[in-house]
Amino acid sequence: MAETWVRMVTAQTPTNIAVIKYWGKRDETLILPVNDSISVTLDPAHLCTTTTVAVSPSFVQDRMWLNGKEISLSGGRYQNCLREIRARACDVEDKERGINISKKDWEKLHVHIASYNNFPTAAGLASSAAGFACLVFALAKLMNAKEDNSKLSAIARQGSGSACRSLFGGFVKWNMGKFEDGSDSLAVEVVDEKHWDDLVIIIAVVSSRQKETSSTTGMRETVETSLLLQHRAKEIVPKRIIQMEEAIKNRDFASFAHLTCADSNQFHAVCLDTCPPIFYMNDTSHRIISCAEKWNRSEGTPQVAYTFDAGPNAVLIARNRQAAARLLQKLLFYFPPNSDTDLNSYVLGDKSILKDAGIEDLKDVEAFPPPSEIKDAPRYKGDVSYFICTRPGRGPVLLSDESQALLSPETGLPK
Amino acid sequence: MAETWVRMVTAQTPTNIAVIKYWGKRDETLILPVNDSISVTLDPAHLCTTTTVAVSPSFVQDRMWLNGKEISLSGGRYQNCLREIRARACDVEDKERGINISKKDWEKLHVHIASYNNFPTAAGLASSAAGFACLVFALAKLMNAKEDNSKLSAIARQGSGSACRSLFGGFVKWNMGKFEDGSDSLAVEVVDEKHWDDLVIIIAVVSSRQKETSSTTGMRETVETSLLLQHRAKEIVPKRIIQMEEAIKNRDFASFAHLTCADSNQFHAVCLDTCPPIFYMNDTSHRIISCAEKWNRSEGTPQVAYTFDAGPNAVLIARNRQAAARLLQKLLFYFPPNSDTDLNSYVLGDKSILKDAGIEDLKDVEAFPPPSEIKDAPRYKGDVSYFICTRPGRGPVLLSDESQALLSPETGLPK
Repeated sequence: MAETWVRMVTAQTPTNIAVIKYWGKRDETLILPVNDSISVTLDPAHLCTTTTVAVSPSFVQDRMWLNGKEISLSGGRYQNCLREIRARACDVEDKERGINISKKDWEKLHVHIASYNNFPTAAGLASSAAGFACLVFALAKLMNAKEDNSKLSAIARQGSGSACRSLFGGFVKWNMGKFEDGSDSLAVEVVDEKHWDDLVIIIAVVSSRQKETSSTTGMRETVETSLLLQHRAKEIVPKRIIQMEEAIKNRDFASFAHLTCADSNQFHAVCLDTCPPIFYMNDTSHRIISCAEKWNRSEGTPQVAYTFDAGPNAVLIARNRQAAARLLQKLLFYFPPNSDTDLNSYVLGDKSILKDAGIEDLKDVEAFPPPSEIKDAPRYKGDVSYFICTRPGRGPVLLSDESQALLSPETGLPK
Repeated sequence: MAETWVRMVTAQTPTNIAVIKYWGKRDETLILPVNDSISVTLDPAHLCTTTTVAVSPSFVQDRMWLNGKEISLSGGRYQNCLREIRARACDVEDKERGINISKKDWEKLHVHIASYNNFPTAAGLASSAAGFACLVFALAKLMNAKEDNSKLSAIARQGSGSACRSLFGGFVKWNMGKFEDGSDSLAVEVVDEKHWDDLVIIIAVVSSRQKETSSTTGMRETVETSLLLQHRAKEIVPKRIIQMEEAIKNRDFASFAHLTCADSNQFHAVCLDTCPPIFYMNDTSHRIISCAEKWNRSEGTPQVAYTFDAGPNAVLIARNRQAAARLLQKLLFYFPPNSDTDLNSYVLGDKSILKDAGIEDLKDVEAFPPPSEIKDAPRYKGDVSYFICTRPGRGPVLLSDESQALLSPETGLPK
């Protein structure tokens, strides 16, 4: 084979947010969880990772660039994913370009990886989930691995636990599995993204001065010290998983919202029961919960569910567009931006929700009467950095348009 | 008997703070808890209730004044305490003044009650615990009830659960009891206040804009909705009670601190596991915890324990005066007062700790280097309203000095 070719694959993978939470590993190396979890996949139009993987006989080592900056691949999590995919690589033949890679060649060939998040990495929006899912998915395609997405999810899981749930769209369940080797700890689709397509998701990215405990460290400390975690994992979550699947299949928003909120709160409760205690939510998170709870109560039936991961950001799931528009009105009223921020950079993602809410300008928000369910509530200017409006979305896809590749087809280096 | 006499008794009763928490009732009317709890009694010199109860044939109804303002006695909790003490009243004879009250007279005689807290009632410092304990103790003495303090505690419990623990000094255990009538749900002394007299307690009264869920409502909602509470009450607390009694008896500060912090955090965890979730701690509370945890870790052995009740105030228990002085330095560094506040009104109670800490003026605090265990930590000016320095203290006492009575010996009305 010629020594100059570069073969590339570009994929796009969504992020996901758990509605029944994953917290606690029973095996730290294989990343095997103490309970099943269920997530909703977020629309990649607003939150996703794009990854280009390339192979060339001219590459002298595996290399990776994240958001344009080269990072080390020496970490065990990257190495696990690379090793597992290489072990499943198959023959690749590209007659047109005269490329022939045999199964055993993959052991010697090096890869270049470039990955880009279309949202701030540091914002605590599960970038590692989308990232490892995309890495594994793209490498599998590059190396012609024949495994289906569930099988690939068990590999992505070894990069970052929640990454396994980003291999599907819609609602996804991560079965904790029973086997010691982790081969049955993988993700399956509950329903695809078309099943419940009136849901609207609004993410409040909350300003925080606090440095948070990493989820890896946090989980370990919870497993080691919380006296409530095992009870949650063994007695509570298994029942909730069944109820949640039922609620999703029936598009039963009341049950879905109840379970989602209760499970988010219980996850944060076991964090608090950890020694030393872990606080991911702050006063702003609490105020967003209070806003959602009061509105739901005043309506008599839930309009919005909330869930928080290992950080202060709120993920709010509205029952439909109308509820989302009303929710956005309330959120903008309570959490107006700092005066130097305009609406366009304060509400990101699907801006059509703003239109539904009758908001063309921040002045429109000022004109609303205060939401009736909370009288005399103060307003918290600047406590939210920005909002992202999105919805449930699809799973990983290959991008065939070469202009979207992050590596140069000539050099295999970042464009 | 003459129709003009007024017979009075004045008592002083401490407040208490639980180190193994009471949260959840199995009987709402009798106020029977779902688990045992243990508390430390706070020195009445800094936090106490003084109550004068008076009886006179001239009184036409039961009346009560709290901090100088008349309040209604019609609530079930006051009525329960009054009824239970009246049922135990005995003959009273005062030969000198020619007063003779027979057991059965008490049913017809009315009482006046005046109560005063030497600390702000609204600050969330368990004023109802000291209040009901003092009411029951003073009425029992007035009516010559022969019950010991444990028996009286079972009556005070019907006014406010945690009040039963204010009938003793030192460390006190509230046995949840087994009987349906609640007669064995009462407080007993674990050790008196002299047993472990090097402990120093610093209370941080935290500024809050939030209106809190009352503990009665909060407990009810936790019992009804938390899936973790029963596990805590049945499986975790019984073991902790044994360990805590042991730690207190052995003056084992490391075990004491570990159990106190873990149980406070677990109480707040079950509040968070409630639907809708209850948040009593705020960002300032979290920062105080973080300050204590980091210091303890940096020292290798615990210097301070923290515990929080149904509100954001921190109760910090330092292992000795030296640790308390260092703690106060740290607290004043992180949480300086607003610029219009002077040291004398910012640190209340036992001001000798200030002297030990080498602080005569707020300028002295500015001169400290930032505590080494938290580098570059921001300072949170105005987030704490004030501190109270105190220590474990004695149980209820009678005040024989009539000048301390809150009612006039002539009229039986507030002085």
